[in-house]
Parts: sequence; structure tokens; C-alpha cells
Amino acid sequence: MKTAARANHREDIVGRANVEDTPELLAYYDELDKHHTAALWTVANKIEPWQPQSSSVPVVWRYKDLREHVLRSADLVSPEKAGRRVVYLSNPGRQDVAAAVGWLYSGLQTMRPGELATSHKHSASALRFIMEGSGAFTIVDGHKMTLGANDFVITPNGTWHEHGVSEDGTQCIWQDGLDIPLMNALEANFFTVHPELQQAVTYPVEDSTAAWAAGTGLVPANDTWSHGYSPLFKYEWAPTYEALARYAKVTDGSPFDGVMMNYINPKTGGPVMQTMGASMQLLRPGEHTKAHRHTGSVLYQVAKGKGYSIINGQRFDWEEHDIFCVPTWMFHEHVNANPSEDACLFSFNDMPVMNSLGIYREEALKENGGHQKIQTP
Amino acid sequence: MKTAARANHREDIVGRANVEDTPELLAYYDELDKHHTAALWTVANKIEPWQPQSSSVPVVWRYKDLREHVLRSADLVSPEKAGRRVVYLSNPGRQDVAAAVGWLYSGLQTMRPGELATSHKHSASALRFIMEGSGAFTIVDGHKMTLGANDFVITPNGTWHEHGVSEDGTQCIWQDGLDIPLMNALEANFFTVHPELQQAVTYPVEDSTAAWAAGTGLVPANDTWSHGYSPLFKYEWAPTYEALARYAKVTDGSPFDGVMMNYINPKTGGPVMQTMGASMQLLRPGEHTKAHRHTGSVLYQVAKGKGYSIINGQRFDWEEHDIFCVPTWMFHEHVNANPSEDACLFSFNDMPVMNSLGIYREEALKENGGHQKIQTP
Amino acid sequence: MKTAARANHREDIVGRANVEDTPELLAYYDELDKHHTAALWTVANKIEPWQPQSSSVPVVWRYKDLREHVLRSADLVSPEKAGRRVVYLSNPGRQDVAAAVGWLYSGLQTMRPGELATSHKHSASALRFIMEGSGAFTIVDGHKMTLGANDFVITPNGTWHEHGVSEDGTQCIWQDGLDIPLMNALEANFFTVHPELQQAVTYPVEDSTAAWAAGTGLVPANDTWSHGYSPLFKYEWAPTYEALARYAKVTDGSPFDGVMMNYINPKTGGPVMQTMGASMQLLRPGEHTKAHRHTGSVLYQVAKGKGYSIINGQRFDWEEHDIFCVPTWMFHEHVNANPSEDACLFSFNDMPVMNSLGIYREEALKENGGHQKIQTP
Amino acid sequence: MKTAARANHREDIVGRANVEDTPELLAYYDELDKHHTAALWTVANKIEPWQPQSSSVPVVWRYKDLREHVLRSADLVSPEKAGRRVVYLSNPGRQDVAAAVGWLYSGLQTMRPGELATSHKHSASALRFIMEGSGAFTIVDGHKMTLGANDFVITPNGTWHEHGVSEDGTQCIWQDGLDIPLMNALEANFFTVHPELQQAVTYPVEDSTAAWAAGTGLVPANDTWSHGYSPLFKYEWAPTYEALARYAKVTDGSPFDGVMMNYINPKTGGPVMQTMGASMQLLRPGEHTKAHRHTGSVLYQVAKGKGYSIINGQRFDWEEHDIFCVPTWMFHEHVNANPSEDACLFSFNDMPVMNSLGIYREEALKENGGHQKIQTP
Repeated sequence: MKTAARANHREDIVGRANVEDTPELLAYYDELDKHHTAALWTVANKIEPWQPQSSSVPVVWRYKDLREHVLRSADLVSPEKAGRRVVYLSNPGRQDVAAAVGWLYSGLQTMRPGELATSHKHSASALRFIMEGSGAFTIVDGHKMTLGANDFVITPNGTWHEHGVSEDGTQCIWQDGLDIPLMNALEANFFTVHPELQQAVTYPVEDSTAAWAAGTGLVPANDTWSHGYSPLFKYEWAPTYEALARYAKVTDGSPFDGVMMNYINPKTGGPVMQTMGASMQLLRPGEHTKAHRHTGSVLYQVAKGKGYSIINGQRFDWEEHDIFCVPTWMFHEHVNANPSEDACLFSFNDMPVMNSLGIYREEALKENGGHQKIQTP
Repeated sequence: MKTAARANHREDIVGRANVEDTPELLAYYDELDKHHTAALWTVANKIEPWQPQSSSVPVVWRYKDLREHVLRSADLVSPEKAGRRVVYLSNPGRQDVAAAVGWLYSGLQTMRPGELATSHKHSASALRFIMEGSGAFTIVDGHKMTLGANDFVITPNGTWHEHGVSEDGTQCIWQDGLDIPLMNALEANFFTVHPELQQAVTYPVEDSTAAWAAGTGLVPANDTWSHGYSPLFKYEWAPTYEALARYAKVTDGSPFDGVMMNYINPKTGGPVMQTMGASMQLLRPGEHTKAHRHTGSVLYQVAKGKGYSIINGQRFDWEEHDIFCVPTWMFHEHVNANPSEDACLFSFNDMPVMNSLGIYREEALKENGGHQKIQTP
Repeated sequence: MKTAARANHREDIVGRANVEDTPELLAYYDELDKHHTAALWTVANKIEPWQPQSSSVPVVWRYKDLREHVLRSADLVSPEKAGRRVVYLSNPGRQDVAAAVGWLYSGLQTMRPGELATSHKHSASALRFIMEGSGAFTIVDGHKMTLGANDFVITPNGTWHEHGVSEDGTQCIWQDGLDIPLMNALEANFFTVHPELQQAVTYPVEDSTAAWAAGTGLVPANDTWSHGYSPLFKYEWAPTYEALARYAKVTDGSPFDGVMMNYINPKTGGPVMQTMGASMQLLRPGEHTKAHRHTGSVLYQVAKGKGYSIINGQRFDWEEHDIFCVPTWMFHEHVNANPSEDACLFSFNDMPVMNSLGIYREEALKENGGHQKIQTP
Repeated sequence: MKTAARANHREDIVGRANVEDTPELLAYYDELDKHHTAALWTVANKIEPWQPQSSSVPVVWRYKDLREHVLRSADLVSPEKAGRRVVYLSNPGRQDVAAAVGWLYSGLQTMRPGELATSHKHSASALRFIMEGSGAFTIVDGHKMTLGANDFVITPNGTWHEHGVSEDGTQCIWQDGLDIPLMNALEANFFTVHPELQQAVTYPVEDSTAAWAAGTGLVPANDTWSHGYSPLFKYEWAPTYEALARYAKVTDGSPFDGVMMNYINPKTGGPVMQTMGASMQLLRPGEHTKAHRHTGSVLYQVAKGKGYSIINGQRFDWEEHDIFCVPTWMFHEHVNANPSEDACLFSFNDMPVMNSLGIYREEALKENGGHQKIQTP
């Protein structure tokens, strides 16, 4: 029976709903229920919260804990049967939608030398961040690119794509990031297996990078790119780190993020894809940033160094290859624990969604010199 | 214990996951679970569906069924206690998020003469479509506008707004439409009660319409509007119907929608708000449109006439003031049952979200001359 | 010999060129000349002026002076021989480029009942403002529209267009406005006569207005317009005047322009064409605006009432149908001399060029309460 | 008397003006003249040409001819008196506006070690291409950058800027490119000398490049740049040439331009400034491109190699540091005369103007396999 379970979210504040249950009202609610309707005041305070309360929880996934399990998946299941061998990150608050944080999915995928996954496409946008191994490659709409550690690569929505490791490579692991949960939530996810299971490489290998990451403020003339995502698919680690190091010399950096750069679509100067953005930030030796919070979810991977982040008052230690998340509207600050080496955090996020829909909001922590007090559990 | 309930979504198709459970794998899954991770192949087919399967169901809410309940709410609860007296539309598939369809909330609100709701603002964007009564008004960031039947009005995200009915009016009913479920899903919803509970009217009454809907391709010169939503807040029924009638004379219309016009933001030519669009369409006497389907959810209100729509193979009859929804990716076609009078459908939707994120997709029904076969239940 | 005529623009100010001619330098200049080069310092002060000094002069063209000459042109030359019978406005400072002001061409065209000009297209953008007569019409890319007094119509760059007067009409006069001088200056002007001399009317008459000026914040749904100019070609006088009157009730207006509205492209909210904008402004009874100046040229036609404008310190009286210009960077203010009736000024300009190129600049007159002192000649 | 000199541009083609002079008409023209008006049909064919006929002529300026004259200017005039010591390129068809081609100004500037020009700003946009010497630097709005051979640097409209050569440098020569003639033509040119004659360097040296050309698809996060021009001011030669070489490996290139890249504004992916774009193109060993023509003027400088271009049927040989122009709508094709080395052409143009105003047009030569026949003079 519905009535028994019916919640009534009351608040004793002017401007908020505060209606006591009465027999008459409960009968009225039952009547409304018959017509696929209900009384707003019973749920108004719940559905119009004072501020977001993320259902995600902060988590750090330690690579030393996961690595063996990821590698083992290749023993346990064949690529033919599994499609992809991935251990995905399951946020305790988001298990129902298979998300690592908010509406972002992430997993650690492994492939062995000589393996090649089937080609498919889907409405979900995807990205990879290479963690270890040699010989990995990705093909996107006929463009093939080889991948090394800390390279960042996108396989945007609607593109045919597949991954593989060359015969002379080693077993590889990389982090996948997708907006699968968002696409499912928006009920806009389509999936197609390539009719020939594999696509042809129709452009020179590495052509996307050669054309679009060729260098310093230059792009191909006379191009006719008209997609909503970047024509540059791969962003290599070496020039990325170099870029950060170069930029670090001339900037004070952000109080909240240290020296931070966004990966961009060179056609627009905006995010690499319409639903997900990505960044790399450098924390200078010993740097301890100030805390802020914002709408939008972020998933970090430690590309270099060690340190910790304080998220919603909890301390999370991290080192290379560890992954951690910052849920929406939780204060967070980062610390590079090494007094003599810099640390680098790769991250991806759903900020493009926040910005496109006009709902990005940001706030610095005002108290305590901008630093959170660490809560002892 | 988790293992017992663990689902494994297998499909016997090349390119899809198809891994049998074994004791070894089940033990592996348990191990992964300890680290807040899981094996992708157990859920891959579920989270990457072949095409969207909306959790919403098509519903028609008949006004003759709801009207008395809506009016009665004003007897049952005071505005002070209820905040707003609204009977909201609760899609059987979306009760958990209080949505009428997809991520769109809608309800029927009533107010009595002399009542004035408290002022507030929220991240959710809102719109109203007036159904009955006289004397209703809305105030948005100091701009007051009076409202009559079939007027469409927006109270965009982040604006102070409140509604009332003048002393010499009658009890009013209007449909509210908001993206509250989306804002909650995106964990970006903020709510604030106006510090003085009521805001001042700081502009001449009806100034927004007088300035921005003044007429035929003209807008105020030297304006400095910089918001993401329309500076025109109210779209009146009389000129809207006139516009449709005028346009109908020179167009063949759309095969799927008859003679359809979008309410626009005159600053951009685009949708009225960043998360919701709205349209009014006229079905010519006896018109029977063809079926198509698209991503994005739509909620219709019958502004004029009677007829029926076939949604996902089911027939839904409607007449003036009835409200019905078309969930994502369901085929739908509309029929004006009156051979001598036109019918008008007001609708609002989340297409701006689909378009901003690059995931709008549309498909005409190819079979059967473009018409669905009605399924007998 | 060049040397004799060689100018040397010297200024005795630090940071400006100030080089005396010497025999050695003059010989050097002669040497440079042989290689199609010259010394910058001889012209630097000339080509980098402190501020713009328009070569146009303020002019008022009085309709009572011109009307008979315009009408008479129809007696003097046949449409076949003349192409179009137009008396064009020749600014004394711009005779070399046939401009009325700056890079804007304008003329008064006349046609008799039953006449139809040949169809052509060109890179120049064009607009018309109807002055007198009945039965005039214009066809643009298959769209025919009828024209009455004070209607504003565009025939954008690259469109096939032609004008005519119906058999049952009267001799008509309208003002043409084109960016011909600009197109010629930019060496981008192409001209083509329609291969069949006349184009077919392929859409319902008035369809552009019926679709795009249908009313209050509404545009056709599902349209695919992709041109750089407005799909709305005709802006009628009656709704325009109504719009101004309506807007006037809720605005204080601009200190410099009274109650002013821009004609817009409903697809973008921006100017009607990429090179020319147009506006209509209402000066309230007795209104005397303040003076400002800006880059960009403006040509006004008095649509209603009488008064005067002070341009660069000179007073220019005007009444209905008079045309006057304000050259770039000249202070100007307007006066409605009638204490009980409003006055309306139609105007067109090259502001879209200024804005697209990032060179719009504006300045209010600070002295004398914002009013110019009228110079006695 | 005007009548004698009055031209009447007749064409015996339907749709064109073809009115014979008669005593009556001549008298009529005199009458019109009194009212600052004239008859359109006397000039219509002139001001509406069939296609653009550029007043500029193709020219090649050979560096070996100019270099000594440029260097000598530093002997002849002091920086204090000359402002800048520049030998500017004076197109024989554009001497009246001091343009090298179309509306583009260009000159060769020289400075000696220890010299520092006064700081100023103007509405004209400017760019430099360094030709020889060491120790040159430019300061733009507090950002200082050092310059080497073949570096490309912008000093956009409205920015304070100045140039100098360090004490330990050598006499430098670079090419200036400005849109001064266009700004003057548009009567929108303002000039201001810095109140303190010199500006302070307020950012770390090279910060613009370090931040915005840091590398491969990365830009500073959280930046708030809102100007219409690029935040990246300097584009260095080494990475530019590397980029071309890299891109050349994966592209067939353009049939008309070989391997060509555009310098871009990393904030938008568009041109570096709103009125001028710039490109670098590589002609592969022995490459002979096909001929095309387009609206917009281009000024080339040979950055590397030797060859020739055929412009409007004339052959122009060039080698390193030579400068040549292609006027609007003239067919042109390029030839790298070296069968074993590549050649590089730097160029700048006014294409952003063509594109912003909707008047870009392009046409390939259809005859003779796409190659012009060289006219013997």
C-alpha cells in the first residue's frame, strides 16, 4: 500500500512546504495517485534542495590494489567473450548507474600483444589515459594512432573506434573515461557494432596529431571539419608535460589548481568533446592549494608524483596511477607532498555540460584561510 | 550478500559481452567489489544498449479528471504551508524523480484572488502555460506581467520570481514546467528564498513584452542583455495564434508536426532557455501527420481543439487542456479529429540539452506509409 | 618629376615623424621610388591620424527639392535603357565613389504602373525604404512581397532580385540603400543579369513575412536557413510604428537616440545583413537628445514628423521624406520640433562592418551639458 | 564646368544602362548636380562591374634591391625624428593610400642595437615578420617577447606596443604588415602616443608564448581573455617549420597552396586578428600548384627557398626574403624551383574581412589543366 510509505518532506521555514498529514489529506493523496499525479508540497523540499548534495562519495582507487586484478582479467576472460576486459570503478553511491562519480564512467582496461578489439560506435563519448605497457594503438574513423604512457586520446561520440596492442608490444593498461551514465540517463545512447567488425585505416598513421598538434598556434588551412568534437584525437605526454613546465615559469597559477591547462579542440579553443573536458595540472614542489567547490564532477589520475587531496574534509593520499574523484559541490584542495619534485594530475570532467546548460557555479572556501579542517573519522 | 543478486547481462552477438558465470569468476567479482570496482563485461550490454529504451511511459492526463482535484487543493492547504498548491504529473516510470516525462517536471498550480506566493529563485528553469482564470500575474527580477489563458511565460534559472492573482481576479490554474529532475540529476540545484519574501516591481508592468515582443523583426537598440535566456518573458496567446494562422497560409508544414513554430529568445534566435524549448503547433482540420521519433522528451498541452496522438503504437485521445507526453525515441504522430476546425498543441521539451550536447537524433517511420499500426492492448 | 610634388607630413610632437627634407634625403626618396617603395616618415603622420576625419560632409537632401526631378526621370529615360531610373545622392566629399556618406550608396528610384525591372544579382547588399505610391513589389529569390509607404525591405547580397509596380498601382518612389561603394573599395563586387531576365515567383506571395514576422517571439520550427542575412525580407511600417509606440511606454530611451529599435535577422538577433544594419527611432514630442559620435556612417530618412539635427555643429532642418547623413565620428543630436507629435527617423548604417572588424568606438559629448554649440556659418 | 567632363558609362547589353547623352539630359544632369545628386544610369555600369578589377598590380620586391636602402635609412634619419625608420612598399596602383596591395600596408623596418621606439597604440592592427638580425624584441601591453629570424609576431589594434633591439644585438630588419589603409578607408583610425613614451614590462618575458603556445592542444585553464585578437602574440619559426614538415607527411596538401597552415588565435581557432590573417605554406621540392583566384589580397614573403609565382599570367621569380603580392581576384599559382629542397612562403591577408562580411569567393582555373599561360610582355 502506498500510503504507508508516503514521505512528506516538511521544513519549518517560511517559503518552504510544511503541511502536516491529516486523514483528509492522505485520502486526497490516494485520489491523486489514481490519476498519475501527486501533491507537490509533499516532495517540494526534497526536489528543490537548498544546495546540491551529491550521491557520489569521494573515493581513491589505489593502483597497487587494482593492478593485479586488472592484469588477471586477461587470464579470466577472452576478448571475444568479454568484448573489452575492463575493471570499472564503481562509486559506492552510484552503483545503480555504474558510475565512478556523478554521470562519469571509468574503468581500467587491459589488452595483450596481438589483441585487437572489435570496432563499434556509440552515442557515449570516450577518452583514454594510458597507464602502462607499450604497443597500444587506437583507430578512430580511419585514423590510427599509437599510444604511450600518459598519452591522452579521445574517441568521440558517433565515431567508429577500436583498440589494440601490436604483436611486439607488452600487456597494456589504460584508464577509460566515458559519459555512458549520462547518455543512459538522458536516454540517448545508441550502440552499433561495425558491420565488418574491424575498420580500415584510411589515413596515414598519426595523421591527426601531425595535422592538428603540429605546433604553436598553427592549424591546417582549408580544412572543413564540422564535427562537435576535436579533430585532434591524441595529446601526447611529453609535449604536455613540457607545456606545463613552460607555462609554470610565467604564471602564478590558480590558487585552487596550481598550474593547470585544458586540453582543447583546436577548431574552437573549447573542450575536446561536447560532454567531457580534460585537463592536466602541475602542483609545484610542496604546493598546497586552497579549497573551492563547483558544480560538475571530476575524476583525477595521478600522472606524476605523490601527495594528497582533502575532499569534503577527508584526506585522500595518492601516488602515481592512483585515481580519485571529487563529487559535485564538495570542497577540495590538493597537496604535493614532495618538497622537491612537482606532481601532475590528469583529470576529466563534465564541465562542458555545466557550461552549455548555464549551471556552472563555483565558490571558494572563505573560512580558515581557505583550507578545510580534516575530519577525523 | 551481493553475489546472489549479481546480474550478468549476456548477449550472444559478436562484439557484445557473453561471459558465463564460473565459481572462479564469481570469486573474482567478489574481490573486485571490495575495491569499489566491478567487471565491465557483466554490465556492458546493459549500460550500452542498442538504442534508448525510455523508462517513461506515454500518458495522457485528462483535464476533466484533474481540474476538481487541483481546485480542491486550495481548500485543503494554505499557501503559507504548502508554498505552492500544485498537483504534479507523476509518470509511472519516473515516480522516483517526480518527473512527468524524462527529466521534465510538470504540475497544475492553482491560486485564488488576492494570493501572492513568496519569491524565490533556483537553478531549475521554469515556464508556465495559463489554463484558466483571470488576474494571474508573474514577477521576474522586477518585471511584472499579467497573464491570460494560453499565455506562455518563462521564469528562467537564477531569477527571482513569484506568482499571484489580483484581488479582482478569479481562481486560476496554470501548468508549470520545470527541469527540476534534470537539475537534481546533474546535482546542480540551488534554492533561495527571497530575503524579504517578496520582491519589488522595478520596471513598468509588461515592459518585457513591450520591449521585446513589440513586433515584426524589431528589438530595442543599445540593449546590454547578457543572460543565457530570453529577455522576453511572456508570449501571449492572441499574437501566437495569429502567427500560426498567418504562417499556415504560406507553408506546407512539417510532415510530422503540421504548422509548427518555436518560441524563441529574440537575442539569439534560439530556444527561450538553455535547458528547455517550447513550441506551438497547429494541426489543420483533419490533418494526420506522419510518425517520427527523436531523442529528447516532450510534454504537450492541448491549447485548442480535439484529436488524438499515436505514441509507440498506442492511441491517446485528447481535448482542450489535456496534457500528454512523448518519451524519448518513441514514434509519435498527431491527428486533428475535427474536419473543419484547427487544433493547437503547446509543447515544451529538453531539445536544447540534446542539441548542446550533440546527441539529438531523429528518424522517420519508414514502414506502412509512415504511420504506426495501433496496438490493441 | 615626382620630387617636386612630394609631400612630407611633419609634426613637432614626440613620437611623431618630423624629418626635414635635405638634398640627400630627397635623392634617397627618388631612389626608393624606383623600387616601388617610399620612406614611411614622409607619410606616417598622414596615414596614422590622431582620429578619423571623415571625407564625407553632412548633407540634408530635401524631398521637396528632389521629388519632381525623380518623377521626371521616368519621362526622360526608359527602363530598358536606364536599367533603373534613380537619382542618387552624391555627397560632395564622396563623388569619386558615388556615395551618399562613407561607403554607403543611396538613391531615389521611381517606377510606373506596369513596369518591371530586369532581375539581377550582385555582391552588394541592398535595402529599400518606400516613400510614396501604391502597387510596388519586390521579388527576392522567388519570394514576392508587396510594398507600401515606410515599409523597409532587403535584397541581400547574392540574391536574384527585381522590382515592379502593378498595373493598378501609381507611380512609386523609394529610397535605395546599398553598400556598392564598400564592395567596390574591397574589390569584391560581382554582377550578373538573370539569364531569363525575369525570375519566377516560386513561393506564396508575402511568405517571408508570414513565416518570419508572424509575431511575438515565434519562428518557424525545423527551418534550415543558413545564409548570412535575414530570412525576413520585409518589415512593414504599421507594426513597426506600433512596436515603437509600445516600447516607448516602458523605456526611458537612449539619451542620444530617443526610443530606438533595430531591425533584426530573427535567426540570429543580429543585423539584417552582414554589412548594413537598419533602425527606426521615435523622438518623443519636443525631445532634444544629447550629442555623441561613433565610428560608422549613418543615413537617415524622416519617416514621420519634423525637426532638426545638429551635426558637427551645424543645424540641419528636416521634415517627412527628407534624407540626411551623419559621417563617421561627427557629433550629432536630434530634435523633434513638434511639441505634441512624435517624429520617426528611419536609418541605415555600416555598423555591422564596424562591429565585425572590432573597430566600433563611441563617445558622448562631455561639454556644455552634452549639447553642441551651433556654429554660425 | 562639370558637363564637359561628365562620363557616361554605357553598355549595349540588356539589363545594363545604355542612355545616350542629349541636350535635355545634360541639362537635367546639371540640375541634379545642384542638389548634390546625379543620375544613376550614367555611372551604374561603372559602379556595378561584372567582376572585381583590382587597382593593385602584382609586384615582387626583391630583398637584394631593398636591403641596402633599408639599412641606410638608419644612417639618414634618427629614430627620434623618424618615429620608425621604415621603407614601405608602394604598389604602383595604390600610391594614394600607401598600400602594398589592396588595403594592406607593408614596410621594411630597421633598428640598431640599443634603440627603443616610443610606445603607441592605434586602431590599425599590425604584425611583423623578422628578416634578419639578433636581439630584436617587441612589447605588447606589458608582455615582452624576443624575436628571431622568421618569427611572426602580432601587435593587435588598441594595444600599446613598441619595438627595440638589445644592446648586444645586431642591426635588425623585419617586415611590418598593417591594415592602416583599411582603417583609414573605413575612417576608423585613432592614434595615441603613450603618455610616458615607454610602457613597463609587467609580465614575465615570453609569457604569452609560454602560456599559449606551450604545446599540443593545451591552453591555460581559468583564463579570462576577452579580446577580439589572439592572446598568443609570437609564433616562432622553429616550431612552425617543424609543424609544416610534420603535417606534410600526412597530407596531400591543397592543389593551390601545397602544404599550408594558418596561424590561429588559440581561444577561437580563428584568425589571429579580426582584420588580418596569416599563414605559412610549404611547397614540396619541385611542386607546381594549380591556379585559383579569390577575393581578398595577399602579401607573401619568401621564408625559405626559391621559385616563382605566376600571377595574372605574369611570371615573378623569387628567393628568400623577397616579397610579392597577389591582388584580389587574380589567378595565381606557385612553383618551387628547387627539385630537392622545400620552399616556404609566409603570407598575410585580409581574408577575415572577406569572411566576416560574407563576400569571400573562390574559383579554380578550369582551362589548360588548371595552369595559366604565361604572357610575354
